[in-house]
Amino acid sequence: MTDYPTGLGTSDRDTISLLGHDLAGDLLGTVTFGELAFWLATQQRPTPGQLRVFEAVLVSLADHGFTPTAIAARLTYYSAPDSLQGAIAAGLLGGGSRFLGVTEDTGMFLHTALADLGDTSGFTDEQWDAAALTLLTQTKQSGRRVPGLGHPVHKLRDPRTDVIIRIADEQGLRGAHLRLFEAIGRTNGQVLGKDLPLNGAGVAGAALADLGLPIELLRGFALLARTAGLIGHLAEERINPIAPAIYAEVDRNAVYVPAIPTN
Amino acid sequence: MTDYPTGLGTSDRDTISLLGHDLAGDLLGTVTFGELAFWLATQQRPTPGQLRVFEAVLVSLADHGFTPTAIAARLTYYSAPDSLQGAIAAGLLGGGSRFLGVTEDTGMFLHTALADLGDTSGFTDEQWDAAALTLLTQTKQSGRRVPGLGHPVHKLRDPRTDVIIRIADEQGLRGAHLRLFEAIGRTNGQVLGKDLPLNGAGVAGAALADLGLPIELLRGFALLARTAGLIGHLAEERINPIAPAIYAEVDRNAVYVPAIPTN
Amino acid sequence: MTDYPTGLGTSDRDTISLLGHDLAGDLLGTVTFGELAFWLATQQRPTPGQLRVFEAVLVSLADHGFTPTAIAARLTYYSAPDSLQGAIAAGLLGGGSRFLGVTEDTGMFLHTALADLGDTSGFTDEQWDAAALTLLTQTKQSGRRVPGLGHPVHKLRDPRTDVIIRIADEQGLRGAHLRLFEAIGRTNGQVLGKDLPLNGAGVAGAALADLGLPIELLRGFALLARTAGLIGHLAEERINPIAPAIYAEVDRNAVYVPAIPTN
Amino acid sequence: MTDYPTGLGTSDRDTISLLGHDLAGDLLGTVTFGELAFWLATQQRPTPGQLRVFEAVLVSLADHGFTPTAIAARLTYYSAPDSLQGAIAAGLLGGGSRFLGVTEDTGMFLHTALADLGDTSGFTDEQWDAAALTLLTQTKQSGRRVPGLGHPVHKLRDPRTDVIIRIADEQGLRGAHLRLFEAIGRTNGQVLGKDLPLNGAGVAGAALADLGLPIELLRGFALLARTAGLIGHLAEERINPIAPAIYAEVDRNAVYVPAIPTN
Repeated sequence: MTDYPTGLGTSDRDTISLLGHDLAGDLLGTVTFGELAFWLATQQRPTPGQLRVFEAVLVSLADHGFTPTAIAARLTYYSAPDSLQGAIAAGLLGGGSRFLGVTEDTGMFLHTALADLGDTSGFTDEQWDAAALTLLTQTKQSGRRVPGLGHPVHKLRDPRTDVIIRIADEQGLRGAHLRLFEAIGRTNGQVLGKDLPLNGAGVAGAALADLGLPIELLRGFALLARTAGLIGHLAEERINPIAPAIYAEVDRNAVYVPAIPTN
Repeated sequence: MTDYPTGLGTSDRDTISLLGHDLAGDLLGTVTFGELAFWLATQQRPTPGQLRVFEAVLVSLADHGFTPTAIAARLTYYSAPDSLQGAIAAGLLGGGSRFLGVTEDTGMFLHTALADLGDTSGFTDEQWDAAALTLLTQTKQSGRRVPGLGHPVHKLRDPRTDVIIRIADEQGLRGAHLRLFEAIGRTNGQVLGKDLPLNGAGVAGAALADLGLPIELLRGFALLARTAGLIGHLAEERINPIAPAIYAEVDRNAVYVPAIPTN
Repeated sequence: MTDYPTGLGTSDRDTISLLGHDLAGDLLGTVTFGELAFWLATQQRPTPGQLRVFEAVLVSLADHGFTPTAIAARLTYYSAPDSLQGAIAAGLLGGGSRFLGVTEDTGMFLHTALADLGDTSGFTDEQWDAAALTLLTQTKQSGRRVPGLGHPVHKLRDPRTDVIIRIADEQGLRGAHLRLFEAIGRTNGQVLGKDLPLNGAGVAGAALADLGLPIELLRGFALLARTAGLIGHLAEERINPIAPAIYAEVDRNAVYVPAIPTN
Repeated sequence: MTDYPTGLGTSDRDTISLLGHDLAGDLLGTVTFGELAFWLATQQRPTPGQLRVFEAVLVSLADHGFTPTAIAARLTYYSAPDSLQGAIAAGLLGGGSRFLGVTEDTGMFLHTALADLGDTSGFTDEQWDAAALTLLTQTKQSGRRVPGLGHPVHKLRDPRTDVIIRIADEQGLRGAHLRLFEAIGRTNGQVLGKDLPLNGAGVAGAALADLGLPIELLRGFALLARTAGLIGHLAEERINPIAPAIYAEVDRNAVYVPAIPTN
């Protein structure tokens, strides 16, 4: 007989337990959905400060307008209006390396770099800048790119960056990931030839990492946030659809090109 | 040239707007993730009372232990650990008619019944009970079932039911959907032969409907809540996996049966 | 100890069995992929005639150009190029009631109608026409539509229709589903006011039903066919992408409209 | 005005073109589904020999019994029986690095190694063995593993291996990828300390690569093959379900463990 262990939910005839608490008596009406999401992911109840940063980061990631993932979800809803879960799933499936991945990639990049740096407690801004310069140089030399730098629209400054850093600072949660990333923001021009701003999705990743969330799951929080955004898009699509016009536009401008080689 | 209208997000070089507000200046650190999710779905900012009920309902729906959807997500993560979005999507795809659909089905059932009832403002409990009896009888006669009644585990009482109703009542949001559903809870034994308790997922649907959320999207809120639960399951699976044991258990007990007719 | 029965595959150290046959010795190089797909779905090996109709129907359903599902798959691949399975899954998720559902809906509609008709063996064309007229009239009176009738592009004649019927006829597999559907094609103008052609996806459903495939799974064969089409789209997208242009087109023409009511 | 180029399908009122051919007149009843799938992916019609190898490989990959992906699809169908596309998509989403990825990983590994080897035409078995030994040694030294080696069940010999190689050889399509992989099969014991057999999914990848299919899409053919297998599982699940028993088994043996740390 195999046991299946879990620290999440169990239930019997009269009670539902979640995270070791009575769901009905202790959690409903007491914790916000954001608080529960943090707690479920870490099996540790967040402090008020952690929760404040976490909710702000989720809000920052929830919607970015007509992204490819939002468009894919709308087209799927148009094709299969009977399956809302399919449209949401289709939208989330675009949450990979190119679009939603920046949050995770940045957190992972900083996490790995900090492991190499060893003890950074007490680092001054000068020390962070020196570490960032070394890291930027190494990364460039190995032909890779620092994730979370630059944004196709917000070319000078991503408006989310300063606000997320300020909220983390107010809660005493501006930790090593954010500080290293800020130093990368200050110094990258010296290595890359021009100053690139820190983008909001990258700062979100650094802030989530400073909260102690599992690095390998940072993409998951971007997906949770985006689920709320996708519901917004599908609510709107139901009333004021754009998918039929997108389909018509693409279909109308299709041009046959014989035998495009695919290999 | 086709225009693509949206009331959600837009951005330019220096600002990101969401729902007509400046994301960085007005929303980050000001609204919770739950508040934003409600607002995105309705394009109306929730009142504090609406938000309190909404967050409680999301908390009630986030996790129900080792459901088939949680197991499917864990198996998918085991097979494809490189794609967290795929595992979450697989978990959400079970959010259909049988498991997660109760929330939507109950809201829809009550909504349709209320449209037939006309003006119910000022209804007494006796009037609600009479309406419920008629509805139960009609539904039984047409061979259908009332959604949200009964629970495989919580056979006497679902512990979430009373708490959600109390929270809605405290906020002045115990509206017609909840009242009709409560009357169904009081009277169903007279029609069905034995008393079935209101289940929590059904009460969640009634409460969401009383908040004025789009009925056709109620399943979406169950899916949003469940996304947080799925991240919890995948976080746990990463550290303390059960998928390999489930796979081994099923594979070990596979029995070949020749030519099962499928038609 | 629970047993898990299956008529599909089992294996031990030295052999792999599939459908009761030795995979390596009996099936590889002997059956086509289409033959295996039919066999897996029914646990009955198709006759050569069944296989010929089945392969023709799959070919007819594989690709319809820039459909919403193909566009959704391409957008998802653009966002998450690291997860080919996610892009294919996103494309299949649009295989619901509106686009790919016609095949299943038509098969199901005809199947139900034939159950009501009883024994139709020996029906003449006149008898089929009379049955079709009754069915068309009943369907119209109940406010529903006959699936598989009409096509947005092929307004006069869907070029697939005659060919699929001819192939089925050559194999002695032009059965009751196809004959009733053909009668609907001949008579619908008398009830609907103008002649609508039978569309190819509907004829595909009727032909699959005449093969004895499980009616509830007809959508699955459309999805199998479409998987091949989606791989074609993604192969092309990798070399000659259109997703960036679609994204740019939609994003560029986004227009903010305040507070679209969603309820 | 943006053009959207494609070499796949286009249609007008009277005709449907696919791959530059008239679908109804030239393809229906003429090409098998497997032939069309190859053609769609490459935009080149396969030779009879290529088609024979391709169909055999698809057959070899279609089903492997109660894999985690088949179980996930069955659980999803149980939860959401209204959405067959969702159950198939959930099954495909497990087609990532661990289970279905072997086909692609092996093809990619061999492709990269061959690019380094330069001209291998005229290589003798001894030359292939020498190349394989160097590759095995380098791979081991860099701490990586050669994909496609070994199988949890078929510990001595995967029965698919020899048959696929024979079929490719008969068609003159036993090319450099297969030959290098065969040499790895002959020599790996000298480097790894014990002989590991070539597994069938890896041989499938080598054979597909020798057909000239796009290396980056090899996983897609495994997914296409698996779609047929998943339809088989869902057809069986509809008649003879195992998902309820799996759910009950896991739920019954759930054990609450407080606060499993996830980070």
